[in-house]
Amino acid sequence: VKNLRQVSVIGLGLVGGSITLAVRQHIPGMTVVGYSHRAATRRKAKTLGTGLKIVDDLAAAAVRADLVILATPIFTFEGYFRELARTIRPDCIVTDVGSTKLLPHAWAESRLAGRGRYVGSHPVAGSEQRGVEFARDDLFDQARCILTTTPATDLAAVRALKGFWSALGCSVQTMSPAEHDRVFANVSHLPHVMAAGLVNASDNGDMRFAGKGFLDSTRIASGPATVWTDVLLANRENIADSIDRAIAQLTRLQTAIKKGNRTRIAQLLESARRKRATLIKYKIRKKELLR
Amino acid sequence: VKNLRQVSVIGLGLVGGSITLAVRQHIPGMTVVGYSHRAATRRKAKTLGTGLKIVDDLAAAAVRADLVILATPIFTFEGYFRELARTIRPDCIVTDVGSTKLLPHAWAESRLAGRGRYVGSHPVAGSEQRGVEFARDDLFDQARCILTTTPATDLAAVRALKGFWSALGCSVQTMSPAEHDRVFANVSHLPHVMAAGLVNASDNGDMRFAGKGFLDSTRIASGPATVWTDVLLANRENIADSIDRAIAQLTRLQTAIKKGNRTRIAQLLESARRKRATLIKYKIRKKELLR
Repeated sequence: VKNLRQVSVIGLGLVGGSITLAVRQHIPGMTVVGYSHRAATRRKAKTLGTGLKIVDDLAAAAVRADLVILATPIFTFEGYFRELARTIRPDCIVTDVGSTKLLPHAWAESRLAGRGRYVGSHPVAGSEQRGVEFARDDLFDQARCILTTTPATDLAAVRALKGFWSALGCSVQTMSPAEHDRVFANVSHLPHVMAAGLVNASDNGDMRFAGKGFLDSTRIASGPATVWTDVLLANRENIADSIDRAIAQLTRLQTAIKKGNRTRIAQLLESARRKRATLIKYKIRKKELLR
Repeated sequence: VKNLRQVSVIGLGLVGGSITLAVRQHIPGMTVVGYSHRAATRRKAKTLGTGLKIVDDLAAAAVRADLVILATPIFTFEGYFRELARTIRPDCIVTDVGSTKLLPHAWAESRLAGRGRYVGSHPVAGSEQRGVEFARDDLFDQARCILTTTPATDLAAVRALKGFWSALGCSVQTMSPAEHDRVFANVSHLPHVMAAGLVNASDNGDMRFAGKGFLDSTRIASGPATVWTDVLLANRENIADSIDRAIAQLTRLQTAIKKGNRTRIAQLLESARRKRATLIKYKIRKKELLR
């Protein structure tokens, strides 16, 4: 982290805004520059408090940065990489916080064209809320951050980025972009698809009778549709496979229910209960969950 | 409520235990008797504090009750109704807190055989936790309670029961058992099936990377498998239909994802987002949610 004097955050939504807050909280002395292409967002971001410099164009954000972080929708990355290639210092570390990683790596390869040092980041933090007004300096406390690398990735850049996210409170792990996209199709993108599917399968009148279970299991369906459309488009094959697996499980339970097969229903529910109990224990041990 | 001098709660799990606590909190002067067929549960229930009489057999609980509440798994109701028919007073109000209502009504009709006055209850409250140790006196605060009635239901019993659940903090509504089971297949039983399916579709290793979204959307899968097996068996046709609708929605999103149809994906996600936003506003207006 000590070699990173300036971080520039492109995109000031919930995650981008929270990065600027967390850096000022956790890394004293680091210059934080923020840019959003929307003037309204820049105005709101200026109310985030002192120590954050908001600039009006990308070049101004990029030119003196040691680390550039894209916190914009995934399908904007390609264009940003192209522009960054013209303005960043050759050794500038470039990363993004997108929820998929194969496409960002491919775009960085072709559009940065050797300029800067790209590493993928995926801080597993956020909420269904949207916008800089929901930014929090503790968003990354005890969160995981996945760094994605290929054989071509600069190892010094990986080390520096590990230090950066760790300083913000993350526990950092490294994997390949392909592995990342497969894993997160299952544990993040599929749940979103299922939550949206559950709401869309429900009648407005019926939903009024919903209890806490329904509300919790559909919370993520309140996430911004544009952001999630990008995610689903950026990880199509993996998500299509995950949906197949989910449908197979639903069909399995449905068959047991139709047949009135008590043993089989109990087995499937108990298997899910146990798997989740093991997961919760693990998350508590890793301090990602309290209690 | 003033005509109900004694309530007897059969089954002292999370819900049954919470009823005994809530009655003592909200209805001073009402005698509360608790029974569980398990000696260990009776012992634990005795630690719930003063003002609760725990008895060792069903007849002792039933004989002087003005209101008997079954808070045991659904498929035990038939047997309990048969036993209650031999011990309750002729005008005793009998209800249950099962999550499905058609079968309880059918069993009450055939097994109570004219003894007592049966009304179905479904307090929409609970959690994934299990056991009297999780009982809370505020479990029913701002919760809905559905009463189910048929043309044969005694109206004075419905009024008394409405008063009882209202006193515990519930907002009470009445519907037919068939309507109840259709609605709750969609908003309660289907979410449980989907949560279990999502966990069962997930690899243990992959799940370690899960964030708050996955954990929230699968919380209900940690509910007791035996209780939920009963629920799914007691509402087979409706749940099978609900699963069909969910699979249709998943397939719809999957098709759009496979085709890379941005407009269609965005439309489906935005529809879910809006529907849920409307729901949340409604729940806040009804004070079922804070914020």
